[in-house]
Amino acid sequence: MEFVQSNPKLIVTADDKVYLASQPADVAERFNSLSRGEMLELFRQLGLAIQAKVVSHLSERNQVALATRLPRPQLSDLVSKMDPDDRVDFYNRMPEGAQQQLLLALAHAEREDIRMLASYQEHCAGAIMTSKYATLAPELNPEQAIARLRQISPDAETVYNAYVVDENRQLLGTVSLRELLLAGANQTIAELMVKEVIAVNADTHKEEVAKIVRRYDLMALPVTDAQNQLLGIITYDDILDVVTEEATEDMHKSANIGKLTTNLKDASIFQLFKKRVLWLVLLVFGNVFSGAGIAHYEDLIGAYVALVFFLPLLIDSGGNAGSQSATLMVRALATGEVQLKDCSKIMLREVFVALGLGLCMAAAVFGLGMMRGGSEVAMVVGLSMVAIVMVGSLVGTFLPFVLHKLGMDPASASAPMITSLSDISGVLIYFAIASQLLAF
Amino acid sequence: MEFVQSNPKLIVTADDKVYLASQPADVAERFNSLSRGEMLELFRQLGLAIQAKVVSHLSERNQVALATRLPRPQLSDLVSKMDPDDRVDFYNRMPEGAQQQLLLALAHAEREDIRMLASYQEHCAGAIMTSKYATLAPELNPEQAIARLRQISPDAETVYNAYVVDENRQLLGTVSLRELLLAGANQTIAELMVKEVIAVNADTHKEEVAKIVRRYDLMALPVTDAQNQLLGIITYDDILDVVTEEATEDMHKSANIGKLTTNLKDASIFQLFKKRVLWLVLLVFGNVFSGAGIAHYEDLIGAYVALVFFLPLLIDSGGNAGSQSATLMVRALATGEVQLKDCSKIMLREVFVALGLGLCMAAAVFGLGMMRGGSEVAMVVGLSMVAIVMVGSLVGTFLPFVLHKLGMDPASASAPMITSLSDISGVLIYFAIASQLLAF
Repeated sequence: MEFVQSNPKLIVTADDKVYLASQPADVAERFNSLSRGEMLELFRQLGLAIQAKVVSHLSERNQVALATRLPRPQLSDLVSKMDPDDRVDFYNRMPEGAQQQLLLALAHAEREDIRMLASYQEHCAGAIMTSKYATLAPELNPEQAIARLRQISPDAETVYNAYVVDENRQLLGTVSLRELLLAGANQTIAELMVKEVIAVNADTHKEEVAKIVRRYDLMALPVTDAQNQLLGIITYDDILDVVTEEATEDMHKSANIGKLTTNLKDASIFQLFKKRVLWLVLLVFGNVFSGAGIAHYEDLIGAYVALVFFLPLLIDSGGNAGSQSATLMVRALATGEVQLKDCSKIMLREVFVALGLGLCMAAAVFGLGMMRGGSEVAMVVGLSMVAIVMVGSLVGTFLPFVLHKLGMDPASASAPMITSLSDISGVLIYFAIASQLLAF
Repeated sequence: MEFVQSNPKLIVTADDKVYLASQPADVAERFNSLSRGEMLELFRQLGLAIQAKVVSHLSERNQVALATRLPRPQLSDLVSKMDPDDRVDFYNRMPEGAQQQLLLALAHAEREDIRMLASYQEHCAGAIMTSKYATLAPELNPEQAIARLRQISPDAETVYNAYVVDENRQLLGTVSLRELLLAGANQTIAELMVKEVIAVNADTHKEEVAKIVRRYDLMALPVTDAQNQLLGIITYDDILDVVTEEATEDMHKSANIGKLTTNLKDASIFQLFKKRVLWLVLLVFGNVFSGAGIAHYEDLIGAYVALVFFLPLLIDSGGNAGSQSATLMVRALATGEVQLKDCSKIMLREVFVALGLGLCMAAAVFGLGMMRGGSEVAMVVGLSMVAIVMVGSLVGTFLPFVLHKLGMDPASASAPMITSLSDISGVLIYFAIASQLLAF
């Protein structure tokens, strides 16, 4: 790997891939494919400012390597230079011993800052905020305000949004740099600022924070405590990461995959095994109930073996329809499109949708039923299809609401769970109808 | 509904809900629950600037109402005032007759702007960009540049990022307002600007655009044509919407739901039916193959009815494991965590993960197999479980790569599709092993 002399902004690697050396994300990607020794070697060659930006883009494995192998003075310089939100993520990944040593080596302000940010639970606003924000006193005029922003710019995540606070750090209002530029020279910050500030508490869930930022197109969102004192801000780039990660988490939940803390590419065989096995085994035991249902009807099956032909088809259809319903509902609840109060209206609508779907699918199998077992079996299969699809869809629609009402994450209504519930009910419905209609 | 006199920034409704009247998203939410007549009545009472912001947050139904019922002079004032990206979305929703009439009523510049933005396909960068951006000439000094930004501020989506162009509108570089504030008085824009600009083409897919914005934490991303001329910019708030919508779309695809163009809450019975029925019926026919497999082994089933007990359990397990694999892979491909070149490494890893999972699940059912049918059946069930889980997982892992390689959306490897493939293979594997081991 070499830094191209003619254009020091680019790195050309041995395999001729070109990266923008000025972009931390690109530098980190290149580093992530090196051995730890090489990575450390090249990392040391970077300037401190770039180092501070690169760290948050490195893989977990590499971050831990830095934390445990960089000489302590270098590590504390690095950590002091990093943005507070990147810094606390880095800190949280370190082994406990390294954390303690690091804190001892830092200045008081940084140590307290890390402690404060690390005290918040992982899914909260507090865990993603930064403590580096721009504040202004209400009595300044625009020219003074801009001069102050210029002055504190190196220490603020953003100067485009400034927060007006009193001497107790209580949030009085916000003002944007754009407004300052356009303001008349005699106005004060107190006059210019927006007083109804949209803010969140430190314990607000990340998903809720993302909904708010998205709804109001915010560039930055202040985080306040119960006394309305400013604790930190969350910026748009971190929200973009939150939205992407939350979507990934929900998608994984829908397939009953436990929370993966590392990048998928880097995960080990054992990690992947561990995150998936629990639910798969639980679902096996859950599915035993559908087997029990079948056991109950063993004689019927022995007499009409043609019924078995349709079994996977029917229970799959219930599962598919239920998955569709659940997917729609879980996502709509997550993005805020649908709320608890809409439940009855949506369930009623689902009855009709599912009825229509069930009838279409019954029509599709009816002909097959005739061919395989005659009109009796066709009737059984057709009726069962309608019933199974309706039950599956209604369960799939209702379950996310129930979970949401109980304060749980609707995304826990996973596809395998819905499918298993549909299977059990499907088996019982199918053979119950069969035993009735076939006079067994 | 009333505007509260004491605090004109709030609206208190008859049911005592309070909305921020200053926030377009809140005003629109209130409007979306009114009848069209009431909505139009109250909309007219708003100032033009707020109207222009509110439109993009209104439901599709309400936007169409505005387009068809507002008097033409009002409509063209409104459209002229709106941001270009919101405006073209509004325009695209109008019935064709209304579109034509509107274009006739607009000034030339706005008409051409709408035509240009509307010419891009829905999934492209061109469809989400705005043409309102700040440009600077390279020879300006910082003070002149800031003065210019102040001047053009009403007409630019953002003044925090400015684009340096030559007389042919070719993009030479970018400079941020923060850099301008911190720059020395004698520097020129040409010296300050960043020359390696991260930009995209107008036909770049939205998902790709989102990956880039996320990777480099961009506040705004310029869109250029083949001659490097600046066409427009995409801002962080629109990317946040893109990421959320793309995630929703992928989740729906994973359950084989067709693209819903309206809000879930507002969708009609027929719309929901239409979006879901096609795939459900197709999957029914697909599942006929698993039935055919069963038909082939009808005699075996008649002789060993206990085998049917385990059928749903086994094929479900294959489907669950396959869904997990597919979910992990589809999402990782969508967010860029995993690329095509990682395929063989990941498939190899999956062999081991799936083997481990299969053995665990086989152990779980083995005892049951003993109870229900003796050691022979237990063997058959155990072996089948391992084989079925491995095949399901590998298919679930491999299919997204195949689709991606063929240029299709990996998210088309939906859970129902994976489940159906697992079912068919599961049935064949199970009864093949059974007929071998039970010497049938």
